[in-house]
Amino acid sequence: MHFVIQHDQFVKSVQHVNKAVSSRTTIPILTGIKMDVTSEGVTLTGSDSDISIESFIPAQDEETEYVEIKEEGSIVLQARFFADIVKKLPGESIEIYVQDQFATTVRSGSVVFNLNGLDPEEYPRLPKLEEDRTFCLPQNLLKDMIRQTVFAVSTQETRPVLTGVNLESENGEVICTATDSHRLAMRKASLETEREDLVISNVVIPGKSLNELNKILEDTDDLIEVVVTDSQVLFKLKHLLFFSRLLDGKYPVTKTMIPGQFKTTLELTKKEMLQSLERALLLSREAKNNVVNLKTLGNNEIEITSVSVEVGKVTEKVSCNEIEGEELRISFNGKNIIDALRVIDSETVTISFTGAMSPFILQPADHDQMLHLFSPVRTY
Amino acid sequence: MHFVIQHDQFVKSVQHVNKAVSSRTTIPILTGIKMDVTSEGVTLTGSDSDISIESFIPAQDEETEYVEIKEEGSIVLQARFFADIVKKLPGESIEIYVQDQFATTVRSGSVVFNLNGLDPEEYPRLPKLEEDRTFCLPQNLLKDMIRQTVFAVSTQETRPVLTGVNLESENGEVICTATDSHRLAMRKASLETEREDLVISNVVIPGKSLNELNKILEDTDDLIEVVVTDSQVLFKLKHLLFFSRLLDGKYPVTKTMIPGQFKTTLELTKKEMLQSLERALLLSREAKNNVVNLKTLGNNEIEITSVSVEVGKVTEKVSCNEIEGEELRISFNGKNIIDALRVIDSETVTISFTGAMSPFILQPADHDQMLHLFSPVRTY
Repeated sequence: MHFVIQHDQFVKSVQHVNKAVSSRTTIPILTGIKMDVTSEGVTLTGSDSDISIESFIPAQDEETEYVEIKEEGSIVLQARFFADIVKKLPGESIEIYVQDQFATTVRSGSVVFNLNGLDPEEYPRLPKLEEDRTFCLPQNLLKDMIRQTVFAVSTQETRPVLTGVNLESENGEVICTATDSHRLAMRKASLETEREDLVISNVVIPGKSLNELNKILEDTDDLIEVVVTDSQVLFKLKHLLFFSRLLDGKYPVTKTMIPGQFKTTLELTKKEMLQSLERALLLSREAKNNVVNLKTLGNNEIEITSVSVEVGKVTEKVSCNEIEGEELRISFNGKNIIDALRVIDSETVTISFTGAMSPFILQPADHDQMLHLFSPVRTY
Repeated sequence: MHFVIQHDQFVKSVQHVNKAVSSRTTIPILTGIKMDVTSEGVTLTGSDSDISIESFIPAQDEETEYVEIKEEGSIVLQARFFADIVKKLPGESIEIYVQDQFATTVRSGSVVFNLNGLDPEEYPRLPKLEEDRTFCLPQNLLKDMIRQTVFAVSTQETRPVLTGVNLESENGEVICTATDSHRLAMRKASLETEREDLVISNVVIPGKSLNELNKILEDTDDLIEVVVTDSQVLFKLKHLLFFSRLLDGKYPVTKTMIPGQFKTTLELTKKEMLQSLERALLLSREAKNNVVNLKTLGNNEIEITSVSVEVGKVTEKVSCNEIEGEELRISFNGKNIIDALRVIDSETVTISFTGAMSPFILQPADHDQMLHLFSPVRTY
């Protein structure tokens, strides 16, 4: 194996596949990054067996030559060093070649690294997926859908299926849902083309995989293809493949949990509500229960309060654009509402209640593609 | 106690004094920030008994009214909440008043915090220092002196006096020295006025105090006054006093450690040497000893190498502006040299050796106000 590659292009690819590599794996070869060199270009692979990322650098495209291939071949190099090393290399190009026994030389400018490589034959092959269930989304839309749901997954392993985001399709829309059983975040997106044939349900993608994917996704409306199978999901970007295993188990039916009729509805400015809850949380966080109380007043105002026996009490009034329906006093986990408000991009939000003891919903006021559901907290 | 104060001014003062407050103190009252209100203005105090910081906000200066004093008095409030609370208050001014039993109300805009205060009589008084040994320095010069020495203090408590920076005066200069017994950093500064009367020696300021002070110092050439006593040092800024206790014990005599004659001298570009050592450290850090090897070559070049049995080897050539004297092979702790190079602001540095087994020095090429000394490492 012997090639010379553009520095910046190579560093970016190595950093991408390195996101899948874990130093805590029990399979030693997976601490490495695999390089495959053919006349077409260089393919890098990183994997922790849950997530696998494959990045391809073509030898050339229409305008630019990225790689000069001198000899085809493969090698696996320790990811932790390799990623740091290539980042710190001084030259505009990097020459890499393998000698006997996987001894690998990395040369750039006046710097020479001699690295102990590992046998590429030991590296597991990535799965070949059946591509019969696929759909496309703009990259920035997928990035939003992940950001607006993944924070709500459970961090507890008691119900493993809740540590993932559930992906399903319905009436030409795809829907992401996450819940830790105290709060739920749901985000829909319409597919650009009619896809009545598409049937996706109970596809539960680990939250960790989506967090890593979101670091790679860029803020462009280039399309990304999503391929779903029974045990894997594959996100296909230009020159990058992101594989994740799916979580086993039946995801709970969440649609029936969402109330349809409301007794009290508030419409208010997101930023004011967020700042008010952040202040209230200063004290309720100290009381270690995050409990914040909300009470409707006259004059389209609500009162937000929280108490810490040790530190003191905070009381503040927040103006609403509108309050409809019955008077209300309710207590909830303020941290959960803050998390949801932070991922809502709209300026105005609606909160709809069905009484002090029932779940309530929070939505952007200007569209219905997103919904957050919360259980109240009993304070007596 | 009752006053109304400008939001931004107050937040800044609270953040300053909060730097001295530790949540791990054994004296409960020191978890608080003390407020003293007189007709002159508001004084805030924070302390962990090693460091004490006092910040004063005058009721008014020539142009602006900062505080409206309604009633004089004092209170102590829990620092951790208070600092967060004032930062998140919405209004442009903050009203604070104390009722019975130290119950304190903090009001801003439509927000009201009721906080449990503590008895200000319990708060320890700050020392009154004899001001007979004092000198002045520009704030940015003191900031540089701290940054360029404090990284070299010992982090081990086996010789407590080495965890501080030694301050001394000599021939109208003040000198800061730090050493962990493997490396030493020294920085001198000339005093603006002749001060032959000034005698400062063995004034050892805890590294931790100087790190906190450096967060408060600003990049201006306004003068700061330094007051030295046998057990305390006081840094006097406009409206801010920073007290630190001194470390007990005799600081080692370091002047005699610095070699005066050299066998090999290199002059090279700081940035190139730094980047080369950072690459070498990638492998030597893994070998857990940070050992980097340097060898002079012909052609005004040196070779930098390091080895990790597990990962591999790096070799690189660095061009020098000049190499004078004997050929040399030497090994050293690369991390220590990197730390020193990072605080040197000059573009060119000189490294002077007295043989492979003797300490060597690193200096900026353009002035002699700074010196770094290192022990070599034996590699056989």
